[in-house]
Amino acid sequence: MNPIDRARAGLATDGARPAVAVLGAGTIGAGWAAFFALSGLEVRVADPAPQAKAQVQAALERALPAMHALGLLAANPAMPQVMPDIAGAVAGAGHIQEALPENLELKHRAYREVEAAADPRAILASSSSGLQPSALQAGMRHPERLVVAHPNNPPYLMPLVEIVGGRLTSGQALAETEAFYQGLGKKTVRLRKEVTGHLVNRLQAALWREAVHLVAEGYASVADVDRTITEGLGARWAVCGPHEIFHLSGGPEGMAGFLDRLGPALESWWADLGSPVLDARTRALLVEGMAEATRGKSYAELAAERDRRVIPVLAASKAGE
Amino acid sequence: MNPIDRARAGLATDGARPAVAVLGAGTIGAGWAAFFALSGLEVRVADPAPQAKAQVQAALERALPAMHALGLLAANPAMPQVMPDIAGAVAGAGHIQEALPENLELKHRAYREVEAAADPRAILASSSSGLQPSALQAGMRHPERLVVAHPNNPPYLMPLVEIVGGRLTSGQALAETEAFYQGLGKKTVRLRKEVTGHLVNRLQAALWREAVHLVAEGYASVADVDRTITEGLGARWAVCGPHEIFHLSGGPEGMAGFLDRLGPALESWWADLGSPVLDARTRALLVEGMAEATRGKSYAELAAERDRRVIPVLAASKAGE
Repeated sequence: MNPIDRARAGLATDGARPAVAVLGAGTIGAGWAAFFALSGLEVRVADPAPQAKAQVQAALERALPAMHALGLLAANPAMPQVMPDIAGAVAGAGHIQEALPENLELKHRAYREVEAAADPRAILASSSSGLQPSALQAGMRHPERLVVAHPNNPPYLMPLVEIVGGRLTSGQALAETEAFYQGLGKKTVRLRKEVTGHLVNRLQAALWREAVHLVAEGYASVADVDRTITEGLGARWAVCGPHEIFHLSGGPEGMAGFLDRLGPALESWWADLGSPVLDARTRALLVEGMAEATRGKSYAELAAERDRRVIPVLAASKAGE
Repeated sequence: MNPIDRARAGLATDGARPAVAVLGAGTIGAGWAAFFALSGLEVRVADPAPQAKAQVQAALERALPAMHALGLLAANPAMPQVMPDIAGAVAGAGHIQEALPENLELKHRAYREVEAAADPRAILASSSSGLQPSALQAGMRHPERLVVAHPNNPPYLMPLVEIVGGRLTSGQALAETEAFYQGLGKKTVRLRKEVTGHLVNRLQAALWREAVHLVAEGYASVADVDRTITEGLGARWAVCGPHEIFHLSGGPEGMAGFLDRLGPALESWWADLGSPVLDARTRALLVEGMAEATRGKSYAELAAERDRRVIPVLAASKAGE
């Protein structure tokens, strides 16, 4: 097995580590670099920014306890190398994770550098949440190897990766990409067609739209709407998806029984859901409501609390599988 | 402190247990009865059905390990008494939890029996998810003591209780109700106005609407949409509400920074969300998709798996508080 196949399979069996390149050392790129390195892969990060090395180092420090707690820390973790140029980073890499700013032209420029230096069999996986693979692969020499692989942030912590192919992506590239992430313990979902926001951001936006409506119309405080999720629906959703919840509500007849008995009620609730706009009044309610809900806690405190608390929840939901 | 005040405060300090009545021994009523009894309260359940006793017994057996795992099992759990008549159950109770079928006339009839026999200071808390407190309290002698207190199912497991007052509910009754549940370890949210579906069902319906749209339009399988929640958003929502997630996405500027930078993107995503209808084609996709996702697992297996898996997630999210 050559290093590229090993990288694709997420395996490091004979001492020679599979090589992965990461383009960009921002929040997502540094998070990916930490994840791959602590998974035991050889990681080269391309980013010319002077702070790139420090950003990768900071991500490594956050990722290490998280991956340890989740049982994902490799016996032989590596240190990512940070370099300014794409050509040096991608040479010999079997998987190239692009995490550059959401600018199509900038990404196209980077892809030309990738294709000049990378193995043509390498997967080029874009972390983009906003751009579609068909747009990203336009003009590429090997567009069949381009996929979107959108992580949940932070990539070293959250299991989900959304996989989307463009019009020219090959089925083989999609299958290899899925196998690669799965080999590293990630959970993949595959979109059958491109769509704005992929799945995660659409579902998140749908929930938040009603959350904003409930606040904007004065039905409940920001804090109470958030608590409705954290104390009620969230824990269930960590182990049971929205379709399965209603499948189980249907009793032994499952989804069909649910739709027979409660389909009309659901449709009437849908018709009653809100369509808020983020005007000045709603913005003020959200900003003031958050200030009240967070009771003076700083960004750093809240972010640290979220990460600290999500790890045991992820471990618990994983343990039950 | 008289037994009614003790019941309101959720305390049993001197050997005399505070008394709680539960009307109805269906899924929700039996679940409440198990929760109150294992919390150490004296529980009398009114239900004339011959299977009522067995239903309460079954709920107790499911609730016991769950409440033990969550640290909620009282040192002195009680056995609920099941009796056919409302008058016998509510006499001397400080808190009356109504969990009858969602039929306004039937509930009004029961409330007349309650008011003929109960202490007028007792709280009458309806578990209704579909009816509003202003409609429920119409015609009552003491409408100021009627609240809606809607649990997440099962009531012995899920922390959330939604509290809603009607036009005639007193602020004191709402405050007493909140204190009662909080004293038993529940998390309460209070609606400021009545609204169809309260908070939980509206938020759940909003998420599911987009989930159905993604399946109906062929973007992803039922299994992959569900996995997007269980492997991505759910664990985060178990510790961090939807508003707080975006507050943190805003970095140190919080919600205001988020709205400045990403508000327009969110509004464009909102505009792109789907409005599916549960027609025959969509129904078939959902039923077939669920069959594929559950791979032949029975209702009993799936329900047991959900309950088994949600307990450690709840314990983990609670431990981090």
